[in-house]
Amino acid sequence: VKLWGGRFEESVTDAVEKFTESISFDKALYKHDIMGSRAHASMLAHQGLISASDRDKILKGLDEIEAKIEVGNFVWRTDREDVHMNIEAELIDMIGEPAKKLHTARSRNDQVLTDFRLWCRDAIDQIVASIKHLQVAMLSLAKKNEGLIIPGYTHLQRAQPVLLPHLLLAYVEQLERDAGRLMDCRARLNFSPLGACALAGTGLPIDRFMTSDALGFTAPLRNSIDAVSDRDFVLEFLSANSITAIHLSRLGEEWVLWASEEFGFLTPSDSVSTGSSIMPQKKNPDPMELVRGKSARVVGDLVALLVLCKGLPHAYNRDLQEDKEPVFDSVRTIIGMLEVSAEFAQNVTFNRERIEKALPAGYLDATTLADYLVKKGIPFRTSHDLVGKSVALCVSKKCQLQDLSLDDLRSISPAFDEDVYEYLGVENAVKKFGSYGSTGSECVANQLDYWLAKLGIYKN
Amino acid sequence: VKLWGGRFEESVTDAVEKFTESISFDKALYKHDIMGSRAHASMLAHQGLISASDRDKILKGLDEIEAKIEVGNFVWRTDREDVHMNIEAELIDMIGEPAKKLHTARSRNDQVLTDFRLWCRDAIDQIVASIKHLQVAMLSLAKKNEGLIIPGYTHLQRAQPVLLPHLLLAYVEQLERDAGRLMDCRARLNFSPLGACALAGTGLPIDRFMTSDALGFTAPLRNSIDAVSDRDFVLEFLSANSITAIHLSRLGEEWVLWASEEFGFLTPSDSVSTGSSIMPQKKNPDPMELVRGKSARVVGDLVALLVLCKGLPHAYNRDLQEDKEPVFDSVRTIIGMLEVSAEFAQNVTFNRERIEKALPAGYLDATTLADYLVKKGIPFRTSHDLVGKSVALCVSKKCQLQDLSLDDLRSISPAFDEDVYEYLGVENAVKKFGSYGSTGSECVANQLDYWLAKLGIYKN
Amino acid sequence: VKLWGGRFEESVTDAVEKFTESISFDKALYKHDIMGSRAHASMLAHQGLISASDRDKILKGLDEIEAKIEVGNFVWRTDREDVHMNIEAELIDMIGEPAKKLHTARSRNDQVLTDFRLWCRDAIDQIVASIKHLQVAMLSLAKKNEGLIIPGYTHLQRAQPVLLPHLLLAYVEQLERDAGRLMDCRARLNFSPLGACALAGTGLPIDRFMTSDALGFTAPLRNSIDAVSDRDFVLEFLSANSITAIHLSRLGEEWVLWASEEFGFLTPSDSVSTGSSIMPQKKNPDPMELVRGKSARVVGDLVALLVLCKGLPHAYNRDLQEDKEPVFDSVRTIIGMLEVSAEFAQNVTFNRERIEKALPAGYLDATTLADYLVKKGIPFRTSHDLVGKSVALCVSKKCQLQDLSLDDLRSISPAFDEDVYEYLGVENAVKKFGSYGSTGSECVANQLDYWLAKLGIYKN
Amino acid sequence: VKLWGGRFEESVTDAVEKFTESISFDKALYKHDIMGSRAHASMLAHQGLISASDRDKILKGLDEIEAKIEVGNFVWRTDREDVHMNIEAELIDMIGEPAKKLHTARSRNDQVLTDFRLWCRDAIDQIVASIKHLQVAMLSLAKKNEGLIIPGYTHLQRAQPVLLPHLLLAYVEQLERDAGRLMDCRARLNFSPLGACALAGTGLPIDRFMTSDALGFTAPLRNSIDAVSDRDFVLEFLSANSITAIHLSRLGEEWVLWASEEFGFLTPSDSVSTGSSIMPQKKNPDPMELVRGKSARVVGDLVALLVLCKGLPHAYNRDLQEDKEPVFDSVRTIIGMLEVSAEFAQNVTFNRERIEKALPAGYLDATTLADYLVKKGIPFRTSHDLVGKSVALCVSKKCQLQDLSLDDLRSISPAFDEDVYEYLGVENAVKKFGSYGSTGSECVANQLDYWLAKLGIYKN
Repeated sequence: VKLWGGRFEESVTDAVEKFTESISFDKALYKHDIMGSRAHASMLAHQGLISASDRDKILKGLDEIEAKIEVGNFVWRTDREDVHMNIEAELIDMIGEPAKKLHTARSRNDQVLTDFRLWCRDAIDQIVASIKHLQVAMLSLAKKNEGLIIPGYTHLQRAQPVLLPHLLLAYVEQLERDAGRLMDCRARLNFSPLGACALAGTGLPIDRFMTSDALGFTAPLRNSIDAVSDRDFVLEFLSANSITAIHLSRLGEEWVLWASEEFGFLTPSDSVSTGSSIMPQKKNPDPMELVRGKSARVVGDLVALLVLCKGLPHAYNRDLQEDKEPVFDSVRTIIGMLEVSAEFAQNVTFNRERIEKALPAGYLDATTLADYLVKKGIPFRTSHDLVGKSVALCVSKKCQLQDLSLDDLRSISPAFDEDVYEYLGVENAVKKFGSYGSTGSECVANQLDYWLAKLGIYKN
Repeated sequence: VKLWGGRFEESVTDAVEKFTESISFDKALYKHDIMGSRAHASMLAHQGLISASDRDKILKGLDEIEAKIEVGNFVWRTDREDVHMNIEAELIDMIGEPAKKLHTARSRNDQVLTDFRLWCRDAIDQIVASIKHLQVAMLSLAKKNEGLIIPGYTHLQRAQPVLLPHLLLAYVEQLERDAGRLMDCRARLNFSPLGACALAGTGLPIDRFMTSDALGFTAPLRNSIDAVSDRDFVLEFLSANSITAIHLSRLGEEWVLWASEEFGFLTPSDSVSTGSSIMPQKKNPDPMELVRGKSARVVGDLVALLVLCKGLPHAYNRDLQEDKEPVFDSVRTIIGMLEVSAEFAQNVTFNRERIEKALPAGYLDATTLADYLVKKGIPFRTSHDLVGKSVALCVSKKCQLQDLSLDDLRSISPAFDEDVYEYLGVENAVKKFGSYGSTGSECVANQLDYWLAKLGIYKN
Repeated sequence: VKLWGGRFEESVTDAVEKFTESISFDKALYKHDIMGSRAHASMLAHQGLISASDRDKILKGLDEIEAKIEVGNFVWRTDREDVHMNIEAELIDMIGEPAKKLHTARSRNDQVLTDFRLWCRDAIDQIVASIKHLQVAMLSLAKKNEGLIIPGYTHLQRAQPVLLPHLLLAYVEQLERDAGRLMDCRARLNFSPLGACALAGTGLPIDRFMTSDALGFTAPLRNSIDAVSDRDFVLEFLSANSITAIHLSRLGEEWVLWASEEFGFLTPSDSVSTGSSIMPQKKNPDPMELVRGKSARVVGDLVALLVLCKGLPHAYNRDLQEDKEPVFDSVRTIIGMLEVSAEFAQNVTFNRERIEKALPAGYLDATTLADYLVKKGIPFRTSHDLVGKSVALCVSKKCQLQDLSLDDLRSISPAFDEDVYEYLGVENAVKKFGSYGSTGSECVANQLDYWLAKLGIYKN
Repeated sequence: VKLWGGRFEESVTDAVEKFTESISFDKALYKHDIMGSRAHASMLAHQGLISASDRDKILKGLDEIEAKIEVGNFVWRTDREDVHMNIEAELIDMIGEPAKKLHTARSRNDQVLTDFRLWCRDAIDQIVASIKHLQVAMLSLAKKNEGLIIPGYTHLQRAQPVLLPHLLLAYVEQLERDAGRLMDCRARLNFSPLGACALAGTGLPIDRFMTSDALGFTAPLRNSIDAVSDRDFVLEFLSANSITAIHLSRLGEEWVLWASEEFGFLTPSDSVSTGSSIMPQKKNPDPMELVRGKSARVVGDLVALLVLCKGLPHAYNRDLQEDKEPVFDSVRTIIGMLEVSAEFAQNVTFNRERIEKALPAGYLDATTLADYLVKKGIPFRTSHDLVGKSVALCVSKKCQLQDLSLDDLRSISPAFDEDVYEYLGVENAVKKFGSYGSTGSECVANQLDYWLAKLGIYKN
């Protein structure tokens, strides 16, 4: 029989038991559940609600249960519904009466949220570490490829030349904001629901500040109904993961593009590629395709949670049991995406030669040329128009801007002078950039230095 | 080493292997993978691409593998990536050379889609059976409660009286359309991708019509690139599931409301209720809360799949490996929701007495009264206004419409006559309904008969 | 005052009026609302519920209102809430008493669903026409480029050579299923809710079959509560649109890739390209980027509708007023996406020369070579391995498979013979394909013929 | 011709122009666009890139344009694509050559993001103000109803008695976290993209810190590619809105329930209710239904944006033009939801008498009774069981716990004593609560004081 079975005459049907159980997934919370029970038992004893001896038996019993779980000797029982009831019932089996006092001034409603918030706090710390790991990998790749010019794209059309490290550092920036979002979420969720009980608190003389402190929470949540009702902390958490996932999907897309025969910018090592069951020549950048693809489930997890919470009245509704799997899945997935991206970054080689050979195409220096005219005093809109005409001339002559003769250029505008050639060609174009945050060599070097310092990496 | 490893010098890292494996979930396809391989091997032999003796060895080997899997003796290996490679490699281990011929004129790209379409076809059949199961349960409940009048709501405000069977049959209608959507999806997906190979087909003389027939497909897909690229069949499948899930979420909401102290329409039996770990008096309609809640993951699965497919170029991209888990989860969840709803329906009792006692409140006969005035020749808008005034009078007198005296009514309009009392009161109101599809007793009886016949249930 | 104002003493606040009004968007339903009112008025007269003379005044009034709306002379009033009340109140203003009878045996609940189903039916017809339009454009493009070989990709890595028309026809197949989904949806939604009234039907002697026929519906909906409660018809509609949108996002992605400098497969004409405000050389394939991007809002519209309906009890809830804008937006967007894709298809040129020059790279003939070995009696797995080794040799020699000498090949396997060169090179590879649905020239020609006939286009 | 038209020979087709225009919605950015241009022009002059006289003409022209827009005299032209080009082209029309210099060292890519970030910053401030507005309304309602006990629910089953202000304050807590999330988002987005130009920065000697300061940004974004590529700031913004929307959907659900005949807790005034076109007696709490329903579109907007960004390579892609409408819609909707909720809160009356009459049902004091036994030294699990049995006894006797005789109670456990009656009945139960955050009167009074102080409201 269930621990809540006092007024029940029949037990639930098998189908209902199977449909409503959560032990198959919420056992992942066992560590935090035991952590919470330890704090709760110590507080109950401190407040005189249980004896010191009962407390000690409970703590010892919990230790044994934890050990058993960790070596895989604990039998999880579906008829005991969830992680809380499994552990409590086992404790009763082991130590008898004292265990029956553990649930004093506690409900599964506040208990599960205590566990879940502790679990999320740990998960955030892990994700933030994985983010840093990927930042470091990107930074190393940037260092390794200092000075390498690649085409920058808008609309996937060649736009302007950029330094590869400049682009890699854009990801480092985005990842930093991703970590910031998680840390804000962590600060907001790190409050203790323990002692909110079912929803109304309790008349027993508990000390919620004591358990809050013991568990490393900032403070107890101020309102017990709020404490057991809301799931905004996981909505915020999965939102943050979704944004990170979208960032990584863009990295995935970009690197899959770059690994194609047509772009040919990078070659992944065999250790991060896979082959085809039918086409013997294939070498596919699968990990980054999956990084892109797995962003979808992180978004799906968020949507599931939003739909779940929509329109629920206060306080606990059984629907909310469904809050855990999306979170577990989101966390597992995002860590995998971050770690594999880092591994991939450590295993790619940029094809310097091939990139250089392909660089002249696409008039990447056209904007630099327009700036040249601006410096000569021509209004930008007019310069833009004149360079547009120069490009049209190149298209008809099938040549690059730097191949136009001064006469050609002067036929378009008398403002062109011999010094124009210092602005043409990709290398010249890059040299000219100088604004804060731009792709100019010094600007990018400054950014690299900033991040090396910030992430605690010393230059070799 | 991998079966595709010819040109590879290094094996993939552990992290990549773990991130990219699919065997942990796609082994669910084993039955359909073996089914597909049987059809393929037979066709290869028929076309002279392998010998009859090789075919027989392959077929025997597949039988043994299937038996092994079914008794749980098959060792799934992560280093063999997926269900296809696990089975093929095991077959090679078992029977040697002939097994190496099985993948002739086949790629994992067409193989997995063959498996997946077969799996979905079976899943649809199962869901449609569960839908019918729930329809039958609702119908039985309707029969059991013939004649029971409940308040009908709009805006969750009492609107008009309706027969409970009328409302239950509304769900039967919705479920019927749900089944229809699935059958349309089934018809559209039941085409064979086998023989599309990697994406371009093959130069070997295979017969795609033969394998298509053997597997019960309508025909081979006409275009091999389409065959391996598209996932619209699962998008459609999960859309259909999502709509069903939304229907069930509404049922869940309604029954949770009805089980509340305040509505008090129904009482679930103990066998479909659960209690509280802290509040001894609680008896909660958890299964229907979870039905409502689990709709969220079905929607999340659909969204994941939509996000996954967005913006992918042709043909196979590794992202698409992520197509399976959302489908598996959606199918498992929707079947659970349907079955538990049916079980719940079989285990609720409607509280006739209590419902009857509460019925007079809410002026459920106001519209009938307006129709009365219309019959007396008063334009509907005017009638509406006059009845609105009558209700206002009731509110001030704290009585029901039928409690107003004829003088009261005549003070509002001289059109009211003695016969007005045949239109007042909930029972009279229900009696007056007669339009097709309405809540009139005969109309509802006709609907009940229609469904009893259609679902093959005989009247007692 | 509102038409429903009988029992109300205060009018709603401005903020509430503004928040709850729907006239700003549901006026789009005016044509279908008037169509419904015409059918309703005629039926009321036929059933003796209003006089022939009242009906004629109503019909004349509706004609005038429709004309006024169409020339832009109708004043839509927010204080009249919605399209139904605006038209009805205007009719009362115009023709007086008879107009007050129009709402006999009708509620806004069944009225709005009648309008909305009629609107959706028309919208589906329009979308299906746009789908066909795009199919025709793709087919023309396929005809124009018969025989053009391009690399086929999996994992965005070059896989096997395919005929461009083969790939374009894959889209035609997908669009055909898209249209099929819409037609199924159309058949399922084409039932009449009119006469379901608020939720319970009516006691007045209406004829729902008459209005159903007059409006071109298949039949009246069988259950009045179902009729006013469900929104599955729009969920199904927006699901179908979402799948189409995902298909188009993939087309967008592919064409954006192909328009890049690196792929260089196609050049859009100036008439479907745009430039940059800063980079004078840019020519961007914006329409296809937007096609890809706009898929997002179609998915967003679907999700909004799913979230909206989740957990609502029967029957009408005001939430459901929010069902319209997502549908209007989805329809407008998907038609735009289809039409612009067709326009783009009519305005691209494939760069035959450049494609041919780039074709040799990527070992596109490797699978053909494996098939060659299979034909020589070597098991496929072994062939795959041998070709893998041949590719590795090419990589080290920086050459193509056809550049390997027979000695080179024989050093890998003695099975290679002089005839191997008939299988090497992209053109040979394509020639070898022959399976149903494959990229073989004849197979693709058959597909082209099929579609030319099916879409009613004659060959030139 | 377009301002970027230098190299173009044809203008875009009408269909493409219509499909790609953004002026119909991005004109909402005009104020921020002009603000950005003012800062940019001043900086250009300060850096010597344009003359002081040109700057003055530009600033004067911008003033005139702003004035024209505000009085509705500005003609927005679709052929000028977007808000940026409309304003710049108009400026050129007005003041000629100097205007052509405004776009120096600027691209629409950095310009639109400057506008958009400024717009979002203002929008956040507005939403935070609306949140506070609703908090104050809830707080006033709590003050007005101090001491009112209502049933607290879990699983929508009566659980324990709570003070109404306790529950209202739970919403205040949630809203506070909502505001916190927005403020974190505001801090993270308040960085200047201006000067990132197309993606690579510029070679012209601009001062990005100067424009950043002038526009109230914290600093310029450090990496120009990141600056023009990422949309995480709007993803975070819409995530925050979605969480708020979900909170409000729960409020909507709860208040719709409470306004039902069955719950009967509250009555909205006529000024926030609406009626029915057919049922004269109806008075519906429409605003709160719509609050619940409109949460759906806020979620849909977020999903649209997530799908939009998924898988896009760096830097600007035209897809991103689709980022604005979901944000505009989300902001408009969430402000409406907050404001109408506040208005509703100001216009409801709680039905004290009716609530009190209904309170005894549901054994709300059962947990208090279990705590009683705990205080007598009985382990909680045993107490829970004993109270369960007491409830079962009540069910069979059709009475409340307080109606059981001491003999009845002692037949269940000898631990029951005369003092048990101080723990029974709803009022006693509430009195017993004392834990931090609980529903005890003093605890709730403390919370009220906290919020009155925090929100700057003085007690009367």
